[in-house]
Amino acid sequence: MPNLDADAPRVAVLGAGSWGTTFAKILADGGADVVMWARRREVAQEITETHRNSGYLPGINLPGNLRGHDSLEHVLAGAEQVYLSVPSQSLRANLASIRDIVPADVPVVSLMKGVEKGSGLRMSEVIRDELRIDEERIAVVSGPNLALEIAKRQPTAAVVSSAHRDTAVAVAQVASNEYFRCFVNTDVVGTEFGGVLKNLIAVAVGIADGVGYGENTKASIITRGLVEITDFAVAFGGRSETMTGLAGLGDLIATCESPLSRNNTAGRLLGQGYAFAQVIAQMNQTAEGLSSVGPILELASTKGVSMPIVAQVARVLEGTLDPRELAPHLATDSDEPQGE
Amino acid sequence: MPNLDADAPRVAVLGAGSWGTTFAKILADGGADVVMWARRREVAQEITETHRNSGYLPGINLPGNLRGHDSLEHVLAGAEQVYLSVPSQSLRANLASIRDIVPADVPVVSLMKGVEKGSGLRMSEVIRDELRIDEERIAVVSGPNLALEIAKRQPTAAVVSSAHRDTAVAVAQVASNEYFRCFVNTDVVGTEFGGVLKNLIAVAVGIADGVGYGENTKASIITRGLVEITDFAVAFGGRSETMTGLAGLGDLIATCESPLSRNNTAGRLLGQGYAFAQVIAQMNQTAEGLSSVGPILELASTKGVSMPIVAQVARVLEGTLDPRELAPHLATDSDEPQGE
Repeated sequence: MPNLDADAPRVAVLGAGSWGTTFAKILADGGADVVMWARRREVAQEITETHRNSGYLPGINLPGNLRGHDSLEHVLAGAEQVYLSVPSQSLRANLASIRDIVPADVPVVSLMKGVEKGSGLRMSEVIRDELRIDEERIAVVSGPNLALEIAKRQPTAAVVSSAHRDTAVAVAQVASNEYFRCFVNTDVVGTEFGGVLKNLIAVAVGIADGVGYGENTKASIITRGLVEITDFAVAFGGRSETMTGLAGLGDLIATCESPLSRNNTAGRLLGQGYAFAQVIAQMNQTAEGLSSVGPILELASTKGVSMPIVAQVARVLEGTLDPRELAPHLATDSDEPQGE
Repeated sequence: MPNLDADAPRVAVLGAGSWGTTFAKILADGGADVVMWARRREVAQEITETHRNSGYLPGINLPGNLRGHDSLEHVLAGAEQVYLSVPSQSLRANLASIRDIVPADVPVVSLMKGVEKGSGLRMSEVIRDELRIDEERIAVVSGPNLALEIAKRQPTAAVVSSAHRDTAVAVAQVASNEYFRCFVNTDVVGTEFGGVLKNLIAVAVGIADGVGYGENTKASIITRGLVEITDFAVAFGGRSETMTGLAGLGDLIATCESPLSRNNTAGRLLGQGYAFAQVIAQMNQTAEGLSSVGPILELASTKGVSMPIVAQVARVLEGTLDPRELAPHLATDSDEPQGE
């Protein structure tokens, strides 16, 4: 049992999907007094009464110092830190309903990866706009974080980023435990873009996998892919060290190597010769990476960033490039040998 | 058939193991007129007569413009580029026997990864010392290059490095073809150390695999491992960009993800609970990564480089750390949250 004492920080986690629940478990295993908000009362009750969330984390026992509730007021009252893990496209609506009840001056932490459709805003930007709070109170968590592995207490590292270093440190202290260690940085832009851009490279790696190519090809795509997503993030104000760290490279590798990743799966189906529409139909849900290809390439072109891997993925999606011809890591602007 | 015409460059490849043969095939598929040296006459004859090297590349057809010979004089006479792919510990002896017959002024290219036992010298340093040639003539090739995948024409990228950029470009032009693209750099130190240091991280990833940890843990070890091998290479004069490129990160990922890698296999056995001596016995051959742990940690300490992952691997080898406790990516000098 964790040491839960009178000094244990009281934290709120909004969202009871697999990642929200896993992160709530991380916090509770680190000693915090955690209350999760679940939209559906039966999920909240299951968490509190049986210490399970069978719909999203089957087979995982949750700690006793983790409870569920379906009232936002109840969950937020007295919270010293607020963690958000709702679907990225419903974040803005959820924020509107908590704007007046989020405790003043406490850190608000995004556990989400993605950009808002239409606006192209990152999750921390949506939080700042909708809650009308200073960016120094906002933090984001990212890294190579496949939920089910962490729920099984496999040793994992992550990054907490905030414009204000003290905010990142305060969050990292509460969110670290014996199997989950948080490092900190102040590059929110790079940390958030890492979590979005890696999905595009994971699709490319999935395609190579589907065609039947092996580890050389995949390693080359990851390595050259890191170069182009770093160029993109830096053009938008991120730092290259963030992209070679856990929130960039770490998340990229975990996503590319996980057979559970939706983006990887979508790519494999494309590589096996299914058309875009067939992949969407077969997966019964959309993969974030597929819908980001167009918007990211548009953003890249506004800054003059070259993204040969993402551009070739776009051509496979359009049906104008045979997946077997995909070799983005070999593409350069000339036949002459070039620097890396 | 490749276009073999009167202008095709004549190149020599010394060594007919799986990598030497694969690289000879790359060169021949790129249009060069290739003669390989095999120590054993029957291997040379098989290559020339049946276009096979069944002992080292079973099932692979070699091009017609690739021949074998067991005479070093014959192989080297008229060569415009000389590629070396002999066992790293017998390189010096092989060089002594060709010193007087290597054509003057042609590039000499190392395809080998490793450091010489005892001296700790990199392969390019052994070549410079033993052939007594200017380092501007020496190049090295490295990258995510699992031989069998390339022999099957899977699209792959590599790096050619030389202190003299023109040498690297000349080699890259001859060694590139439709499925194998060479990029160039002038960081020989980083390029060669990448190929040595990645084996140590591959052992750590193998241990995590053997224990039963998943993609988060492995991705975190690779990401934090890249930090420490970059620190090492930079301390010895390499460049960090080389380590995040194909010869560092690319090779690291391919090695860590390949179930065929000896270093990965050795790590998995350690992770499953076998002792060092049992692993050596069971593998029937040594894994480069295991024998480099001690020497690399000694070199690191002379420059004050911290290598927590390699240090934990050393403790597993000694038997003083339970592999299940291996979590090097979580280790820092303090309990406080730290920057990446």
